[in-house]
Amino acid sequence: MNLVLKRALPLLLSLIIAILFSSVNYLKNVDPLPSWKEGMNKKAILLFVEKVTREGSNDYVEPEDRIAVFDNDGTLWPEQPLVEGIFLLKTVKAMVAKDPSLKNKEPFKAVMEKDTGFFEKNNHKGILQLAVAAYGNKTEGTFEKDITTFLKSEKHPKFNVPYTELGYQPMLELMAFLKGKGFETWICSGGNVEFIRAFSDDMYGIPVQQVIGSTLKMDFKKVDGKHTLWRDTVIQSFNDKEEKPVNICYHIGKVPVFIAGNERSGGDIAMLTYSDERKGPSFQLLINHNDAAREFSYQEKDNASLQAAAANGWNVISIKDDWKIVFKK
Amino acid sequence: MNLVLKRALPLLLSLIIAILFSSVNYLKNVDPLPSWKEGMNKKAILLFVEKVTREGSNDYVEPEDRIAVFDNDGTLWPEQPLVEGIFLLKTVKAMVAKDPSLKNKEPFKAVMEKDTGFFEKNNHKGILQLAVAAYGNKTEGTFEKDITTFLKSEKHPKFNVPYTELGYQPMLELMAFLKGKGFETWICSGGNVEFIRAFSDDMYGIPVQQVIGSTLKMDFKKVDGKHTLWRDTVIQSFNDKEEKPVNICYHIGKVPVFIAGNERSGGDIAMLTYSDERKGPSFQLLINHNDAAREFSYQEKDNASLQAAAANGWNVISIKDDWKIVFKK
Repeated sequence: MNLVLKRALPLLLSLIIAILFSSVNYLKNVDPLPSWKEGMNKKAILLFVEKVTREGSNDYVEPEDRIAVFDNDGTLWPEQPLVEGIFLLKTVKAMVAKDPSLKNKEPFKAVMEKDTGFFEKNNHKGILQLAVAAYGNKTEGTFEKDITTFLKSEKHPKFNVPYTELGYQPMLELMAFLKGKGFETWICSGGNVEFIRAFSDDMYGIPVQQVIGSTLKMDFKKVDGKHTLWRDTVIQSFNDKEEKPVNICYHIGKVPVFIAGNERSGGDIAMLTYSDERKGPSFQLLINHNDAAREFSYQEKDNASLQAAAANGWNVISIKDDWKIVFKK
Repeated sequence: MNLVLKRALPLLLSLIIAILFSSVNYLKNVDPLPSWKEGMNKKAILLFVEKVTREGSNDYVEPEDRIAVFDNDGTLWPEQPLVEGIFLLKTVKAMVAKDPSLKNKEPFKAVMEKDTGFFEKNNHKGILQLAVAAYGNKTEGTFEKDITTFLKSEKHPKFNVPYTELGYQPMLELMAFLKGKGFETWICSGGNVEFIRAFSDDMYGIPVQQVIGSTLKMDFKKVDGKHTLWRDTVIQSFNDKEEKPVNICYHIGKVPVFIAGNERSGGDIAMLTYSDERKGPSFQLLINHNDAAREFSYQEKDNASLQAAAANGWNVISIKDDWKIVFKK
């Protein structure tokens, strides 16, 4: 061995070790939530994740129980306008263009005549009726293609980019952070399941089998000589309010340790309550839409979600105060 | 550096490298399916998995699409007797012991009087009626506890060990092999979902969120001052025959690449067909129970499953001829 090299070896080794250690420390200190402002809420998230994932901690949660569930509209992307609502209206209008006699029949008539009252009465029963009319009576494959075509061609009226580019950056970071800490991330949305599955993997890194949404009844039968899943015109599950914890049980069978929803219609209160009453540690996050400049500002009529959050100590996220940016540039 | 060590170093290094290489080769040659006899079926499984997982192969399947689905009763453990059937009868008898007036009411009456005709008529409608009576009208937590207690206390009448020790060893190896090759393994069973979830992780390494089974409707409501999932006395889904592909779509949203069922009632034909008509490669496995000595021998009345297998080229597994052992000693 060369004498110079031999003498330099201990120094070289120390250097390598020093570099390795400093990169480990560097990696350790990288902020997993750079789009979140420093403050109580960011701190609470980081502390919670630390205590449930550190072995030996009193609040340690086994990796197989690390379930994180997110609502979609208003929690992971904007709901002004409700993206699926635009798709629904487009679909219905295309149906009427193809068969003009439909415009004399409800629920088509109410759409063409902009009779919003029809959709609001009886606890929004008209909207479900419309969804059934537009989403049913076709094969699963046809329906999926319609959704993909819509998502590719449409842009958000305010932000002028495709809807699929409007994931909330702080929430994308939060999901990636939880996933990195061994959490399985799920969506539990009132929206149609096929609609959300069309973008869940690309936008959020959530595979389609981890999406729970509203569904129509289906039949497995032969259509044009080929076995297919046929979409009936009957609702199987409207995954809203109290139906959310029920479907979480059917699909996951474990009570979520981390759960996130938003205020607008009280749709997430039941699933946040379900998580909150879990045996063992849990974290509830509720997004408050109060940023008209960067996103939207709107409140629930009865304020039920924010009241439930206050009563139960859930973490209310203010878009205005907790997020440095809302969307990635 | 010590001179002897210095001279020995190249030799030592070669030795270490040789050992490392031979262990790699050794590991490569370990049989992943040691309980399967050499033959067409074992070869077909190994070849299929090789071709769908080797990058550059024409039949390569992306890791996220590697979904493997297994029926449970008669596919992963014996169905003679149907384990859940024993649980159901025990539950019903306990209910009658507690409230003797029930024995004059159907479906309890038929159980107490061993009126098997009641359960067979109308496409086994009586069995569903019994399941609803026994499984409903209680909290999800109570029901789960009843199942765990049953599984701990009961033994198989022929093999005299707890049911949970009766996983088919060749199928356990197959599931572990597929998992190791990047497949996500799921159960899709006609059995009650909570029943299977009670042992799926321990027995099969399948987490509860990857179990699809039959379900009752549930409500999320307050019981004794605490929010809870309440089991109604209405069937939500009887996950049999054509309902299996429908529920696979609700829960997974991808068509299974690998699927396994068994002959007895034709219950798996629809889901095997669904997989078979997948765009891209797929593998269908159907177990034929023909080993009265080591397990059981029974055939379907109309032979529909074996006929469908022959017509579609599915891989029929003969327990007698394809498996070296059925259960682990």
